[in-house]
Amino acid sequence: MEKIRPHTLSGFMELLPAPQMQMERIMAMLRKTYALYGFTPLDTPQLEAADVLLAKGGGETEKQIYRFQKGDSDLALRFDLTVPLAKYVALHYSDLSFPFRRYQIGKVYRGERAQRGRFREFYQADIDIIGDGQLSILNEAEIPAIIYRTFTGLGLKKFQIRVNNRKILNGFYAMLGLTEQSGEIMRTVDKLDKIGPDKVRAILTDDLSLSGEQADRILAFIAIHGDNDAVLTALEQYRGQNEMFDIGLDELRTVAGYLTSFGVPEDHFAVDLTIARGLDYYTGTVYETTLLDHPEIGSICSGGRYDNLAEYYTEKQLPGVGISIGLTRLFYVLQEQGYLNGDVNTAPAEVLILPMTEEVSPAIALATELRAAGIRAQVYTEKKKFKQRMTYADKLGVPFVVFLGEDEIKEGKVSLKDMRSGEQQLMDAAQVRETVLGFQAADAAAPSIREK
Amino acid sequence: MEKIRPHTLSGFMELLPAPQMQMERIMAMLRKTYALYGFTPLDTPQLEAADVLLAKGGGETEKQIYRFQKGDSDLALRFDLTVPLAKYVALHYSDLSFPFRRYQIGKVYRGERAQRGRFREFYQADIDIIGDGQLSILNEAEIPAIIYRTFTGLGLKKFQIRVNNRKILNGFYAMLGLTEQSGEIMRTVDKLDKIGPDKVRAILTDDLSLSGEQADRILAFIAIHGDNDAVLTALEQYRGQNEMFDIGLDELRTVAGYLTSFGVPEDHFAVDLTIARGLDYYTGTVYETTLLDHPEIGSICSGGRYDNLAEYYTEKQLPGVGISIGLTRLFYVLQEQGYLNGDVNTAPAEVLILPMTEEVSPAIALATELRAAGIRAQVYTEKKKFKQRMTYADKLGVPFVVFLGEDEIKEGKVSLKDMRSGEQQLMDAAQVRETVLGFQAADAAAPSIREK
Repeated sequence: MEKIRPHTLSGFMELLPAPQMQMERIMAMLRKTYALYGFTPLDTPQLEAADVLLAKGGGETEKQIYRFQKGDSDLALRFDLTVPLAKYVALHYSDLSFPFRRYQIGKVYRGERAQRGRFREFYQADIDIIGDGQLSILNEAEIPAIIYRTFTGLGLKKFQIRVNNRKILNGFYAMLGLTEQSGEIMRTVDKLDKIGPDKVRAILTDDLSLSGEQADRILAFIAIHGDNDAVLTALEQYRGQNEMFDIGLDELRTVAGYLTSFGVPEDHFAVDLTIARGLDYYTGTVYETTLLDHPEIGSICSGGRYDNLAEYYTEKQLPGVGISIGLTRLFYVLQEQGYLNGDVNTAPAEVLILPMTEEVSPAIALATELRAAGIRAQVYTEKKKFKQRMTYADKLGVPFVVFLGEDEIKEGKVSLKDMRSGEQQLMDAAQVRETVLGFQAADAAAPSIREK
Repeated sequence: MEKIRPHTLSGFMELLPAPQMQMERIMAMLRKTYALYGFTPLDTPQLEAADVLLAKGGGETEKQIYRFQKGDSDLALRFDLTVPLAKYVALHYSDLSFPFRRYQIGKVYRGERAQRGRFREFYQADIDIIGDGQLSILNEAEIPAIIYRTFTGLGLKKFQIRVNNRKILNGFYAMLGLTEQSGEIMRTVDKLDKIGPDKVRAILTDDLSLSGEQADRILAFIAIHGDNDAVLTALEQYRGQNEMFDIGLDELRTVAGYLTSFGVPEDHFAVDLTIARGLDYYTGTVYETTLLDHPEIGSICSGGRYDNLAEYYTEKQLPGVGISIGLTRLFYVLQEQGYLNGDVNTAPAEVLILPMTEEVSPAIALATELRAAGIRAQVYTEKKKFKQRMTYADKLGVPFVVFLGEDEIKEGKVSLKDMRSGEQQLMDAAQVRETVLGFQAADAAAPSIREK
C-alpha cells in the first residue's frame, strides 16, 4: 500500500508524552488556582459564525483568521477567548450572575507567519470578571494576587507584575493637550528601553511635531521610577490638573494599597508608567508580567480593565477586568530555557508491575489494589525477556518496578525496586502502597518550574 | 452602533456555568481513571493536513468533514481521535515505548445533519494501547476493568459491558461458507432486537439468497444466551471446525476469565454474540456498554481490538485495542434523563465572603487564608444592598456565605451561614476552614451521576 507521509502542521505544537505530562501539570495548576479565586470554568466552541467572531472587524487579526465556508455557513476558528466570552455573556446574559467570574483554557488559532517559537494553534488561559453596569475597583486590585499565586504555584520566583493605569496616561496626555496624538506617543515611548531617551525625544519632536517642552515633560513623566511609594508620591505632583488623571491615581493607589491583604510581596509588584497595552480597549488598570532574568521574552501574563466587553452584541454596559496567559508560547519558552523541573515524574504510571510467572492474576490483583489507593499502576503483560522489560521501564521513566515471581507470590510479598536509587526490597502490598503514596505526595508538591 | 446577533452554531454544545461544572467533574473523573491504568495524556492538534486525516479515504465521514484551504494548505478539523493517534504513533515511533498507552479527551468535528441530541463539535474520550508488532490478549482483558471503573467512578450502577470477538464471528461465517456475505449478514443480524427473528430470516433468505439451513444456523448461533459460562459452553460445540473460531473462543475465555482479578463483577459483563462493530477495522475482542434502563440510547462506550493502527502511514505493524466514549452525547443524555446529581456543588466557590464594612482588608485577608487551605473563596466587593448580595449568593448556589461586620472583626470572628440548612454561626477562621473543608471532601466524593 502506498503510504502517506505522517506529519503535523507547521506552527502546531504536538508534544511527546513526557513534556505533555509537564504541560498537563501546568494546566492543572492554572485550573486549581483560578478556581480558588471563585472563577468558574467555561468551554465555548472553537468554531463560531464568522460574523459573530468578526463583529469588531479589523486589521491584522482578520488576515490571520482561519475562516471558511461549510455548506451555507461562514465559519471561523476563534482567534482569542475574549470575543467568544463577549458573545457568551451577551447571549446568556439573563442566566448569569454578575459579577461573573470565569476562566477558560482553550486553543485559539491565528495563521501567523510560521517561525520558531510562534504558534498557529495555541492555548490561552484567561480569567475575566464581568460586571453588569459597574464593577468595583477592588476587582482590579485582586488581579495581581491571582497572577502572583498562579506563577508562585508553578514554582516561579523571579518575576514581577507591572501595573499602570490608562486613566493616568490619558489624563496626563490631556494635560499636555495631546489627547489625539496619545496613541502614537505611547507607541514611541514604548521603545524607550530599546532606543534610549534621546531618540525617543527626537521622534516626538521631529516626527510627531511635539514642542520641546512637551517632549521634555513626557520624558520626565516616564522617567518616574522607584518603589511603589516613590512613584505614587511623584505622581501626586500632577494632581488637580485633570479629573481623569486624578481618578486613575486614586485607582492605582487602591490597587497598590491592597497588595498586602491579598498576600502579594511588594518586590513582586511595580508601578510602571511605560506600560500602556491595547490602546483602544483598556480603560483602567493594565498589567504585564515579566521574568526578571528574561525580559526579552516579554510579558507572560497581561491584561487590564475594560469598560465594555460586548458592545458589538448588546446595549448592556458590561465592564470587566481580565488577564491572559499565552500558555503554549510560555511552555515553549520554559522548555527552551531549561526551566521545566526535570525531577517531576512524567511517566504514565508510578508503578510498573512485572509478573515473572505465566499466571498473571496475582499481578493484576496487586494493580487493582494499588489503583484503589489512587496509585497509577500498569501491569506489563507482553512476553518479553527480562532485559527488554527493564528497558521498557527505564524508557518510560517509571519511579517504581514491582517484581512478582513464584517465591514472592508464595510468601505473599513483592519485590519493589526504586528505579531512582536502584534499591530493591521485599515487602508486602501495604508497604508498597505506603512507599508509593509517599513518593506521589512529594511529586505532587514538586514545582513544575525550576529557575536556573 | 449596530449590533450583531450573538448566537452559537447549531450542533455546538455551549453550557451554562452550573452544567459546565458537572461536565468538568465528569472529565476530571475520566482523566483520573485513565491515569490509574497507566495511560498517558496526549493532546494532538485539532487541525491536520487533509491528506493525513483522509489517508484512509472514504465514505460517509469524508462528506461530514470540515475541510478548507488556508493559503496553499489543504486543512481539515479532526473527525475522531484515532486517525490523529495513528499519525502520532507513526510520526513519533522511535520516541515512544511500546506497549504505548495513551488517553485523549478532545473535541472532534463532524458536519452531521443538525438535529436534537446530535452534535457537530463533540468530545471523545479515548484510550488505546498500541503494541509494536504484537500485543498480548491480556490488554483486551483489561479493557472491561477500565470501563467498569470509569462508569462506577461516575456513579453509574445499572450498566453492562457487552463483549464479543470478531474471530468467533468471522470463523463462524467461514464455517458456513459465507465469509464474503458476512458484512451484510451482520448488518441484518444487528436488527434482531428491532424487527425480530422471522423478519431477519426472511431478509437472509430472500434478499441475501442464503439457504434455509444457513439462515437457521445463523439464527441458532445468535440465539445463544445466558450467563458467561453458559454462552462459552454453548460455543464449545462449534470448536474444531475453523481455526480462527477456535482462537477467538480461547481469547474470549481469557477475557472473561480475568474479570475477577480485574475486579469486574460478573453481572456487569456479558458475552453477547450479536455485537459486531466496525466491520473492516476490528479483528478481535469488541466492546459495547449499555445503560440497562436505557438500551435505546445505544452503546455509551465502544471499541475493540485492531491489527494495524497506522497502515496508511508506516510499514510497521501496530496492533492495538481501544475504546471511546462519546462524551458530549453522553452528557446530553445524562442531562435529558435527569441523571446528573443535582446535589453536587456547581457554584464557582465554596465560600462567598460579604464584607459589611467600608474597609475590606479583613475580608480579603480571610479569603487569602481560606484559599491557602485549598478552599475556593470569593469576596463580594460590589456596593450593593444586603438583599441584592444574598440574591447573588443564592443564584450562584454557593454553599456558604461569610458575613464580616464591625462586631465580627472586633471579636476576631466571622458569621458563617450554611446556605443549605439556613443555619448561621459565629466562629473563628479556623472553624470556617474546618467546616468548609468537611463539606468539600464530601462533595468531592459525591457521584456525578445519580440514577433514578
